[in-house]
Amino acid sequence: MRYARRIVDMAESPIRKLVPYAQGAKDRGVKVFHVNIGQPDIKTPESIMQAIRNIDMDVLAYGPSEGLASYRNKLPEYYRDRGIQVEPEDILVTTAGSEALLFTIMALCDSGDELIVPEPYYANVNGFAAMAGVKIVPVRTYLEEGFALPEAEAFAQQISERTRGILICNPNNPTGAVYSRRRLEELGELVRKHDLYLIADEVYREFAYDGGKSVSLLELPGLEERAVVTDSISKRYSACGARVGSIVSRNRELLKYILKMAQARLCPPTVEQIAAQAALDLDADYFAGTLAEYERRRDRVVRELQSIPGVTCRKPEGAFYVMARLPVERAEDFAIFMLRDFSYEGKTVMMAPADGFYATPGAGLDEVRIAYVLNEEDMAEVVDLIRRGLEAYRS
Amino acid sequence: MRYARRIVDMAESPIRKLVPYAQGAKDRGVKVFHVNIGQPDIKTPESIMQAIRNIDMDVLAYGPSEGLASYRNKLPEYYRDRGIQVEPEDILVTTAGSEALLFTIMALCDSGDELIVPEPYYANVNGFAAMAGVKIVPVRTYLEEGFALPEAEAFAQQISERTRGILICNPNNPTGAVYSRRRLEELGELVRKHDLYLIADEVYREFAYDGGKSVSLLELPGLEERAVVTDSISKRYSACGARVGSIVSRNRELLKYILKMAQARLCPPTVEQIAAQAALDLDADYFAGTLAEYERRRDRVVRELQSIPGVTCRKPEGAFYVMARLPVERAEDFAIFMLRDFSYEGKTVMMAPADGFYATPGAGLDEVRIAYVLNEEDMAEVVDLIRRGLEAYRS
Repeated sequence: MRYARRIVDMAESPIRKLVPYAQGAKDRGVKVFHVNIGQPDIKTPESIMQAIRNIDMDVLAYGPSEGLASYRNKLPEYYRDRGIQVEPEDILVTTAGSEALLFTIMALCDSGDELIVPEPYYANVNGFAAMAGVKIVPVRTYLEEGFALPEAEAFAQQISERTRGILICNPNNPTGAVYSRRRLEELGELVRKHDLYLIADEVYREFAYDGGKSVSLLELPGLEERAVVTDSISKRYSACGARVGSIVSRNRELLKYILKMAQARLCPPTVEQIAAQAALDLDADYFAGTLAEYERRRDRVVRELQSIPGVTCRKPEGAFYVMARLPVERAEDFAIFMLRDFSYEGKTVMMAPADGFYATPGAGLDEVRIAYVLNEEDMAEVVDLIRRGLEAYRS
Repeated sequence: MRYARRIVDMAESPIRKLVPYAQGAKDRGVKVFHVNIGQPDIKTPESIMQAIRNIDMDVLAYGPSEGLASYRNKLPEYYRDRGIQVEPEDILVTTAGSEALLFTIMALCDSGDELIVPEPYYANVNGFAAMAGVKIVPVRTYLEEGFALPEAEAFAQQISERTRGILICNPNNPTGAVYSRRRLEELGELVRKHDLYLIADEVYREFAYDGGKSVSLLELPGLEERAVVTDSISKRYSACGARVGSIVSRNRELLKYILKMAQARLCPPTVEQIAAQAALDLDADYFAGTLAEYERRRDRVVRELQSIPGVTCRKPEGAFYVMARLPVERAEDFAIFMLRDFSYEGKTVMMAPADGFYATPGAGLDEVRIAYVLNEEDMAEVVDLIRRGLEAYRS
């Protein structure tokens, strides 16, 4: 049978290949620590679960395609508290950050168009780009430089006739980099000069450590028409299963076009939007507590990782991922080894080999992404297992 | 600013133009009966709402991309009760029927490919086709024939080098037609002969009146690789806001490809899948009661509509829509008149002008779609308002 080329050629999820090995380990009774995906163990705030348990409606009806009015009207308060001035009309509620990215790419690019993306990048962008027939043109960032954004010139060199925009993720998944205001402003200058869009996935906005702050595209002047932010409650409130996100932009013409797609799919889930609205009442203490917890985990993971001979990593400034270079030829082989051939006291680790986060062939082959989404003690055990696994693998 | 052609050119929702007029009527204090969309007033079953209220989890986590195992494993019972033999591996849970349609079209068609669709058809297909760059090639069905499927020859004439499949909706939205087994078998024969797919949106499966039964593509022999069914709980359980649907096909290679897209978007909403699972325990009485209620509404609406001079409609066999030809030149103008210029005892009606359900320019200009989603008394009042509105409009 024949299938669409776009789907046959679509890159598979970087960890998909490892899933049967993880299942095999579990079938043998081995406990597998999952640091391969960004699924936090942090408890979903009680107010969110309570809002779900309090659902009281006769008919679980369609909501508006642009999102429930009560939620959309309240969202600007959340942004205002973070120094971002937006109106309800600048916000379109989506079915999670996934749909926000898909709709944004679809609305800005036709088949054959290009988006420039600093690599390594969030691998699911490959899926959305493939659906839209869009080519991802990578600009390399490096572990040694903390995966900082390169100068605008590196992006300028990749601009072609088909380039429609630059897509970043800040704070970054998978690298944990938090981009400087200056570099963001340079990118803003570049997109203005070349008539492009600047898109930022800012779902990790709250996760900036060491007293730092992540700068939103929506704070930068002069980008009203060109800045598009995709957002999600998944990480912010440890509510990944809720599937509520948003597209935020002051370009209302763009939102009007995106609304056409939103109307075709009718609406985001109603119950979870009500839950997301309840989350807006969480106070600063909630975020301070969560941030402190992740910062502790990061410090511990990085310290332990750096103590392993041959392992290189930098302390990430945000999100909850760390990229590490391992003293192996192919990190994917090692990740499989950890699941298939290794265990210590009945335990092992599932990591994400990093080559799937790069578009450049051969890049990142010896790197892994570790999500510090488990508690500090578990994370310490994870790194100890990696240490022991490396010893076994290299002997 | 420049936007993607696919989105700029995308047909807008057929009722979108009317929304400001409906709002205007409400602002003037006029009560608007909404028979323009398929949002039933039927109470969502208590067991579904109870499942939501009973949600008990520490972390509202990602579910599997293919759907929660417990839900997916139980779904075959639902299909088996309707004479459809499928395994959990034949089912991929989606974020509503919308995503099921989008993923199916994306997986079967590349940009520039064609799908043949009997018109009038579910207008949101235009949105998904536009996102995928797919051309909809219509085959006309007629009010006078109860919008029955034409002979396979009519479809055969539209097959080109770029045709990838035939997409039907059965029972049909917007026409209420329920397709005969014989005609479905003929289509099956045709897709086998021309190496195409046959896709059916079967979300109205339970809604077949007068003791009739809608035949699923999955019941037809010899279509294992070619039949794809898109499904949703929205109409079945009056749970439109839940956003839980599925793609069902015995072509596991196809589902494997669709899973790539599903993995990119991570998962469908978790809470609503748990609710959908609870709905599987609803017994035959629930469906019998709902069916009887809709059948009463249909009988009343059709009888009253047919008593209006100049109005033509046939009694639909399924779903909960009726198409009516009105004695006006442009039904859209009349629909606007009803909202902007007409009210009787402080009430009026919002209908869907039918031309948006046709791809052929100029087709259906004097037709409207009426959704009998309100109770019998309200529906009688709706038709009375249409009668009085027509009198006022034509004088």
